[in-house]
Amino acid sequence: MPTALDFYFEFASPYGYLASLRIDEVAARHGREVAWRPFMLGAVFKLVGTAPLTTYPLKGEYMKHDIERSARRMGVQFVLPPGFPHSTLAAARTFYWLVDDDATTAKAFAHAFYAAYFGSGEDVSAADRTAAIAATLGLEAEAVLDAAQQPAIKQRLKEETEAAIGRGVFGSPFIFVDGEAFWGGDRLDQVEQWLETGGW
Amino acid sequence: MPTALDFYFEFASPYGYLASLRIDEVAARHGREVAWRPFMLGAVFKLVGTAPLTTYPLKGEYMKHDIERSARRMGVQFVLPPGFPHSTLAAARTFYWLVDDDATTAKAFAHAFYAAYFGSGEDVSAADRTAAIAATLGLEAEAVLDAAQQPAIKQRLKEETEAAIGRGVFGSPFIFVDGEAFWGGDRLDQVEQWLETGGW
Repeated sequence: MPTALDFYFEFASPYGYLASLRIDEVAARHGREVAWRPFMLGAVFKLVGTAPLTTYPLKGEYMKHDIERSARRMGVQFVLPPGFPHSTLAAARTFYWLVDDDATTAKAFAHAFYAAYFGSGEDVSAADRTAAIAATLGLEAEAVLDAAQQPAIKQRLKEETEAAIGRGVFGSPFIFVDGEAFWGGDRLDQVEQWLETGGW
Repeated sequence: MPTALDFYFEFASPYGYLASLRIDEVAARHGREVAWRPFMLGAVFKLVGTAPLTTYPLKGEYMKHDIERSARRMGVQFVLPPGFPHSTLAAARTFYWLVDDDATTAKAFAHAFYAAYFGSGEDVSAADRTAAIAATLGLEAEAVLDAAQQPAIKQRLKEETEAAIGRGVFGSPFIFVDGEAFWGGDRLDQVEQWLETGGW
């Protein structure tokens, strides 16, 4: 069976949101699965010495414009949430709580969270909000809130983030195709070309 | 006559080099000219709080790989010059010394400089080297060295850099199509789509 693509993303990343809407479809066209791997971009920022895009002078303004333009180009609804970026720790933990037993639900949760955050522009920083989003998929809100506080789940997210950094991940989205790294939602065309041709 | 595209670039920018090889051709397909505008990216870094891409942990390694991969994809020769990045002040000044009287020669000089720097991987930091590159186009090496020290030329580059910043330029390459800004050599496809459709 061909190797799955690794899709690293941060739940507070607008470009991660845009890529999340296309990555499975791109992979499927070439008979590939995608392993979704949320990580904490804040840990990377500390290591690399960077900061959220929208906090830079000039670059921040451009990025806001570019994200909206990129979404329009894809025909996707996008609203930059007021107060962006928010903490998405609860969402990432919820994902890892789900993924081993039921990757399909984990992915559905990720889509639902992203849709609320960047599709509707909601403030999702409270863990309650994450639990409410999970509840729309039939999950127990209380169980979600509990899971996000379990030491093993917290540890899992830490380890996944460390593993991401160990593989050179420094931004979101970050995609591996057979060991080849692609950074950025605007590289999905290259990801597809790599899948088609095996590289250049 | 339709408005020219503005192509802002730093002579020490590998992605600027790659874009320089395609920008005129993209514009010409849509009946447009391109005004080339070198600027000093170092001044922008100070303002924005960023640094040369290759100096960041993780990001730097990825960038080196991505530049080489992008060049291969275009079928373009690329060598990262040892000791990169070098000062390219003399080159930017030479360009502005030439451009008002003879934009064609200014562009030919920019191509020749980029070819030496990133096509062959030469150390171009000495003003002598810039003059020697200009000399291959029939310019007088002594006149080039002299021009790069003229207060008016120095001032021109400063003003062009300030004007670039005033328009929101924070990286290289940076392209304006009818007031719409595109950052990055990998956005030439979007530049072309914008030219074709008038925007989306």
